[in-house]
Amino acid sequence: MTYQHVSFFSDYGTRDEFVGVVKSVIADIAPQVTVIDITHDIAPFDVRAGSLAIARAVPYVARGVVLAVVDPGVGTSRRAIAVEVAGGVFIGPDNGLLGAGVALAGGALRAVELTNTAFHLAAPGATFAGRDVFGPVAAHVCNGVPLDELGTEIDPAGVLPGLVPLPRHEGDQLHCEVTWIDHYGNCQLNVGADDVEAFGARVTITVGSENPSTQIVRSVPVVASFQDIGGGLGLVVDSYGMLALCLDRGSAAREVDAATGMGVVIERGENPGVVTSVSIGRPSA
Amino acid sequence: MTYQHVSFFSDYGTRDEFVGVVKSVIADIAPQVTVIDITHDIAPFDVRAGSLAIARAVPYVARGVVLAVVDPGVGTSRRAIAVEVAGGVFIGPDNGLLGAGVALAGGALRAVELTNTAFHLAAPGATFAGRDVFGPVAAHVCNGVPLDELGTEIDPAGVLPGLVPLPRHEGDQLHCEVTWIDHYGNCQLNVGADDVEAFGARVTITVGSENPSTQIVRSVPVVASFQDIGGGLGLVVDSYGMLALCLDRGSAAREVDAATGMGVVIERGENPGVVTSVSIGRPSA
Amino acid sequence: MTYQHVSFFSDYGTRDEFVGVVKSVIADIAPQVTVIDITHDIAPFDVRAGSLAIARAVPYVARGVVLAVVDPGVGTSRRAIAVEVAGGVFIGPDNGLLGAGVALAGGALRAVELTNTAFHLAAPGATFAGRDVFGPVAAHVCNGVPLDELGTEIDPAGVLPGLVPLPRHEGDQLHCEVTWIDHYGNCQLNVGADDVEAFGARVTITVGSENPSTQIVRSVPVVASFQDIGGGLGLVVDSYGMLALCLDRGSAAREVDAATGMGVVIERGENPGVVTSVSIGRPSA
Repeated sequence: MTYQHVSFFSDYGTRDEFVGVVKSVIADIAPQVTVIDITHDIAPFDVRAGSLAIARAVPYVARGVVLAVVDPGVGTSRRAIAVEVAGGVFIGPDNGLLGAGVALAGGALRAVELTNTAFHLAAPGATFAGRDVFGPVAAHVCNGVPLDELGTEIDPAGVLPGLVPLPRHEGDQLHCEVTWIDHYGNCQLNVGADDVEAFGARVTITVGSENPSTQIVRSVPVVASFQDIGGGLGLVVDSYGMLALCLDRGSAAREVDAATGMGVVIERGENPGVVTSVSIGRPSA
Repeated sequence: MTYQHVSFFSDYGTRDEFVGVVKSVIADIAPQVTVIDITHDIAPFDVRAGSLAIARAVPYVARGVVLAVVDPGVGTSRRAIAVEVAGGVFIGPDNGLLGAGVALAGGALRAVELTNTAFHLAAPGATFAGRDVFGPVAAHVCNGVPLDELGTEIDPAGVLPGLVPLPRHEGDQLHCEVTWIDHYGNCQLNVGADDVEAFGARVTITVGSENPSTQIVRSVPVVASFQDIGGGLGLVVDSYGMLALCLDRGSAAREVDAATGMGVVIERGENPGVVTSVSIGRPSA
Repeated sequence: MTYQHVSFFSDYGTRDEFVGVVKSVIADIAPQVTVIDITHDIAPFDVRAGSLAIARAVPYVARGVVLAVVDPGVGTSRRAIAVEVAGGVFIGPDNGLLGAGVALAGGALRAVELTNTAFHLAAPGATFAGRDVFGPVAAHVCNGVPLDELGTEIDPAGVLPGLVPLPRHEGDQLHCEVTWIDHYGNCQLNVGADDVEAFGARVTITVGSENPSTQIVRSVPVVASFQDIGGGLGLVVDSYGMLALCLDRGSAAREVDAATGMGVVIERGENPGVVTSVSIGRPSA
């Protein structure tokens, strides 16, 4: 079994040579392989954000290897692993980064701890496992090296699961949170379009629900495109089928001063007095 | 007719997985294709900036597909189109993004609206046409799918043109504007080297010409390299044959607090008293 | 002799189309070649930072061409060169950028000045040698064009060496400097792990040693992983075998307000009173 594509996720950033060096190492071992950079701007050390990025992208990644490195415990006893799924192999640290992606890819068929150093690079220091362990192993897997040669087989059920935050109902309220703020300032929530279907075409949201003195309450439409918001904030069914707090041609994140993890409460119906009486944010556009 | 290269322009940024996911989708449909990232840091929603970036790059892009996505109207009635030119196909939204590039590539030979959903991905939401429409279509075009299978043929003359700002003469003055500020802070103007040739080797510029109270007036040389400026601001014939306001080993944009669209007036001759008497900017280096 | 890989370093940034245009030019001349972006975020005009990035990456770059462009003197009399080493060819300006990398690759076998314009692009301006000179030449070298066709042979010993800052001993003190601050805020020093081995497992560092009134003195461990620091600052043997000032899951650069070139003095032994009595930085975590 050989693969042609490696889909590469990391928190390496693109300012330094980290990503390029990993790709160079792969190119020397498996020159026929194409590495696709999915993202390298996961917030440094943020395993949960990495896990969510992988989960969003996995339905679309090319058949082959998923190479994922957000690895604050590099050089310690955290395990380096490879997990086989239908259509490919996930490679990275066993710290919760891979669990959600593996599940979305249909679940683990087999897993190994990457203990066979014959497939690693000798390294002058232990802090760059992407270059010295994960990258070379990804290349060897693409070349057809079977999983059981890479190290000790481990129980796939023991791979650390990703922590996906779930929304909860409290009476008529749906309590959710901002799980991802994208480049445009759209704030994805952990709520699918189906979850609020019964609430109707217009709902009331309370943003920053942890802190009554700074929270922002708005009546917003639930729509299918940015332009359909028609001014101000809106909930758009995004390209993953989730609800995202958006502003047409502007940054919703800036508008409400959002941060990942911030609570948002969604309630049925329209409350037209709400914008002027309760909001302390900037007036809506 | 098959193609090997896709040149990819967008305002997706590189922080999220958008670009990588589009490339993954292309890789699954057309694994033999190489995607070249031209830029993904067009300012969000800025169709004009995207159009200018495409115009600058088009003389150099590889034979094949130009995939361009700056698409604030995604999910609305704006058309998704493919435009055939000599040597390739432009694919993107019909919102003015593609017009200038198509013209520079010799003009449209044929155009279609991308109405045949058999070449799209089914999507849980309508906001990511790069992944669901433009990317897959680019891959199928590279695989040799003829344009007329992609959708309804449209009149190429109906493709929205790009708006390229033109300079204008007022008496002895040439009124132009900053069309692009690059990574180094060089400010490209919409004026070619030929346009000021008659003005001589040294000209007077008024930057920020809209506002007399904050404008900066300088006597500057017109030269062929940054180093030839010899200190302070200068007009350099840039790599596109346009004039750019530059500082040797520094940022002209920071020096004059420039923004895209800012007016600049160029006049013949040297006015040595000008820097101290009129400028309110920082003194030149 | 043909090559399949070009490893590309520059200060072009990734906001504009510079990198993509160079890759497009290479793709048209040598479509079979894979370009690996090592980094494009070398600080603008910073030849020394570029030289150090190349030196760090060279042991890992794929066999083939190293294309490196940090070129403030573009369009002037600085030479454009190609330098053959074992396993590949370095291409870039002769301004000190290539010297360290060439030395680490085993030294120059041959060198030429790129005077044969038959292998360049005609250009409307002289400021983009990556597109017009270095990129096309890199592609032609990959295609097998021998070095002596590219221009006039020059003495390899005349290629400008890179300036690598060396640490120095003063009595029991080792005076070094911050040579690189990475994406995570780790501050690499110009000192190898061997150089301080005799100092023991815990040393005293003085950061910002140029200025007694703002310098920070700390007792820190010398360890092999970020987690082994155990809180606060530590010296970690990084992936290059050098010492780096680090904070576990945080930015050491922010903690000590570091800048590239900042002096650091390392001394033997522990000085437990030091953190509270002398430091004026924020208290350690």
